[in-house]
Amino acid sequence: MPRVVVDVMLKPEILDPQGQAVANALPRLGVSDVASVRIGRRIEIEFTGEPDLDRAREIADKLLANPVIEDFTVRVVETDEPVDARQ
Amino acid sequence: MPRVVVDVMLKPEILDPQGQAVANALPRLGVSDVASVRIGRRIEIEFTGEPDLDRAREIADKLLANPVIEDFTVRVVETDEPVDARQ
Repeated sequence: MPRVVVDVMLKPEILDPQGQAVANALPRLGVSDVASVRIGRRIEIEFTGEPDLDRAREIADKLLANPVIEDFTVRVVETDEPVDARQ
Repeated sequence: MPRVVVDVMLKPEILDPQGQAVANALPRLGVSDVASVRIGRRIEIEFTGEPDLDRAREIADKLLANPVIEDFTVRVVETDEPVDARQ
């Protein structure tokens, strides 16, 4: 069954202290080639019937994102997409 | 400049109270065709040079995800991908 995925990220001009904290921790892991880290939310919505992008957009706008400081994207993905790419 | 995106989601068998709270709020918005909502994190990593998937996987495993309760995927995206699909 396909799902709708909503990706919510802080607008580029908004400071992201959580991402900054991760970026600052990387040199201690021996990683020095990372320029920036931004952390947002990924929301997976499963509909009882067909995935409804307009409905998902409405949910994102009213409930999932703060449009003042965040942008979001809405798209349909197939659920047989690999969940864990480590294999 | 391409970025690496790490998507971190709770494993399917782990309860997601935050997603459940959103799902429970939907009928009050007049939405009744949503079966489930799961909330995870989306992390965008920008490298100083070429995007390095193996390095990103190592960062995700050590710093971004809790492998006991979370799965993650790692992939490269172009930054000219639309950030806001509302248009």
